[in-house]
Amino acid sequence: MKKNLLYAQSGGVTSVINASAAGVIEAARSYDARIGRTFAARNGIIGVLREDLIDTDLESKAAIAALKHTPGGAFGSCRFKLQAFSEARAQYERLMAVFAAHDIGYFLYNGGNDSADTALKVSEMAAKLGYPLTCVAVPKTIDNDLAVTDNCPGFGSVAKYVATSVLEASLDVESMCESSTKVFVLEVMGRHAGWIAAAAGLAQRPDFDLPLVILFPEIPFEQDKFLARVAHQIKLCGYCTVVVSEGVRDANGHFLSEAGGSDAFGHAQLGGSAPVIAQMITRELKVKHHWAVADYLQRSARHISSKTDLEQAYSVGRVGVDLAIEGRNATMPVIERISDTPYRWQIGVAELKRVANKEKKMPRKFISKDGFGITDACRRYLQPLTLGESPPPYRDGVPDYVRLLRLSVERKLPIYRIEDA
Amino acid sequence: MKKNLLYAQSGGVTSVINASAAGVIEAARSYDARIGRTFAARNGIIGVLREDLIDTDLESKAAIAALKHTPGGAFGSCRFKLQAFSEARAQYERLMAVFAAHDIGYFLYNGGNDSADTALKVSEMAAKLGYPLTCVAVPKTIDNDLAVTDNCPGFGSVAKYVATSVLEASLDVESMCESSTKVFVLEVMGRHAGWIAAAAGLAQRPDFDLPLVILFPEIPFEQDKFLARVAHQIKLCGYCTVVVSEGVRDANGHFLSEAGGSDAFGHAQLGGSAPVIAQMITRELKVKHHWAVADYLQRSARHISSKTDLEQAYSVGRVGVDLAIEGRNATMPVIERISDTPYRWQIGVAELKRVANKEKKMPRKFISKDGFGITDACRRYLQPLTLGESPPPYRDGVPDYVRLLRLSVERKLPIYRIEDA
Repeated sequence: MKKNLLYAQSGGVTSVINASAAGVIEAARSYDARIGRTFAARNGIIGVLREDLIDTDLESKAAIAALKHTPGGAFGSCRFKLQAFSEARAQYERLMAVFAAHDIGYFLYNGGNDSADTALKVSEMAAKLGYPLTCVAVPKTIDNDLAVTDNCPGFGSVAKYVATSVLEASLDVESMCESSTKVFVLEVMGRHAGWIAAAAGLAQRPDFDLPLVILFPEIPFEQDKFLARVAHQIKLCGYCTVVVSEGVRDANGHFLSEAGGSDAFGHAQLGGSAPVIAQMITRELKVKHHWAVADYLQRSARHISSKTDLEQAYSVGRVGVDLAIEGRNATMPVIERISDTPYRWQIGVAELKRVANKEKKMPRKFISKDGFGITDACRRYLQPLTLGESPPPYRDGVPDYVRLLRLSVERKLPIYRIEDA
Repeated sequence: MKKNLLYAQSGGVTSVINASAAGVIEAARSYDARIGRTFAARNGIIGVLREDLIDTDLESKAAIAALKHTPGGAFGSCRFKLQAFSEARAQYERLMAVFAAHDIGYFLYNGGNDSADTALKVSEMAAKLGYPLTCVAVPKTIDNDLAVTDNCPGFGSVAKYVATSVLEASLDVESMCESSTKVFVLEVMGRHAGWIAAAAGLAQRPDFDLPLVILFPEIPFEQDKFLARVAHQIKLCGYCTVVVSEGVRDANGHFLSEAGGSDAFGHAQLGGSAPVIAQMITRELKVKHHWAVADYLQRSARHISSKTDLEQAYSVGRVGVDLAIEGRNATMPVIERISDTPYRWQIGVAELKRVANKEKKMPRKFISKDGFGITDACRRYLQPLTLGESPPPYRDGVPDYVRLLRLSVERKLPIYRIEDA
């Protein structure tokens, strides 16, 4: 008996999350004996609650294929965590009502830790409420912090962006350092784990050394030790490149970026550790600095996505549909590493219970003893994830990205306001 | 009679200045009946004063070719302005002594406004001091503000980087805006002119609209008008992308970034207009922001250089040598536009007197009436400069850039300390 499939995107997007969407939709179309229509929720789980569904069957084959080279979340994403069942039973009943109204038998939720948790909760509640649903999480996060899977789709592309940008900017500073800028500071994402900062280490190679200092959120910041290291690099090479994670904290656990003050709501404004570090360097070492904050540029840079990452993102989408068809409820496709050199991988399966709300930290053995760089083990882990290029097509000088039609599926239920729930 | 050629790089580097170096060196090698050895000064004019010369003849053909895909300044650049002859006669005499000691007959100086001025001064002083020298400036600057030439090598690649990054980040915010970030702010370079900020406008197309607000240094910043525009875009599209030039000032002529304080030397720290704008938006409009500062990333991003820009950078290098051989002293190759569509260009020649210390401003007709966008005329001018891709080769996931041997030419003169001069 045919059932419809519902796909949704969740959390911070990546440059290849739409490749997972393409994998899901292309696989669903190939299962035409088992899957009826393929819907996507607009803005993740919010769209499910609102019964705001997009009919992906109205999108052309070419448009779906073009998702593979288009960054952002084509159906809209969300930051929204379902409450516990005991506290928000009405929310779960609404979800089931929407599933039932649109004959949804398969729910694929594409996201990170929170999203795996959402998918697990939905599957448990469907069972509890007696609604027949196969629920599969499709992994995605630039933070690379999902449990079980060897790596997370989206991360390899950020790693490639960061390594390339650090290499390029370092060559720039190297040219300027005799009479101008001596230190370049780049801030990268990663509030809890230093995976993204670590990728900067790939800009260094045995035959192409760079004076690089990395500040990881895992290592409490010590000003004197740091400044001594930067001064040493300047003495040795004439310049220094510093890569600082947004999540770096001092010995008291305060974010460096908090030195920059708090926002209108009184929250510490993250995204400001680079200027703090840069100003510290000029104040203490009396050298000229430049600083950059990559922010969204690093996670949306589809123009320099890793081909390996792209293929993995597409594969977890396709396999997610396979798992749904096989009735593997509350699971997630994961990436399994078979070998480092040559890099070989395959898609395995994990129970969502082993994934949801767990956080994979970077092993201490991946950070060099002095705390300012990466180890060979880290390099062996990271490098394969950045391999290969798969640039988008360009039109008139800029990438030719697709925007889908995103036509709405007719509503069948009363309006539901999340704000009132 | 054979004479040696001396090439040097000056000012802020670009992602394609080394393509000009390759053009110079490859052309010089082809003129083996007229040109003896080809030297490069280490760190621009500073290297000439110090007699710190690099023997480019020791670099392999492959290494020189690889300069075409390597960013930064391969021989080192400088920020150093020669004083007037009347104030620093000894400096000019030293330059001539170095030229004479190494039998330099051709001097090619690769830079922007200041460098054109330096080249002109050197040519005038050589004539005054009776030293036979043909002096040619090779244009380069991401600021696109050199006179006479239709555009400047280095700018087209930054334009391509900015347009692409704005497009990619906008797709990211578009996905997040329902329940998270509603405004993304990107700061770009251009202290005096809005050429780089204007390039963001290329991310918008008739068939792919984006809610974009550009803040140009040419337009005094008006907070109320700006916030109203951003609020309008959010209402219309759910989000807004703001591109702000580092050089934006308020009605009193103060840099926005000065709100961020001054550096250790008491200078206003530029490179901070994005956080100022972002915090203003959250404070006044109560929406979540993200902000990025591209800084050196934008001018070193060889991985996304414009092929057109690359070809022009290479060509001005080659033609610079032709001009030197023809004895066209105190000139500069310039880019002449023949047509917009299809884009056709050729290399012409300008007298340095018409270039040195002039600054080409962006015409007001290139900025839309409301001051927040670009006009069709601007688009017609900018777009061709971004056309085509010419990615570098990659090795193990990151670009395979070259570092030259940079072996020094034997010194023949007493040591000269710039600091003492």
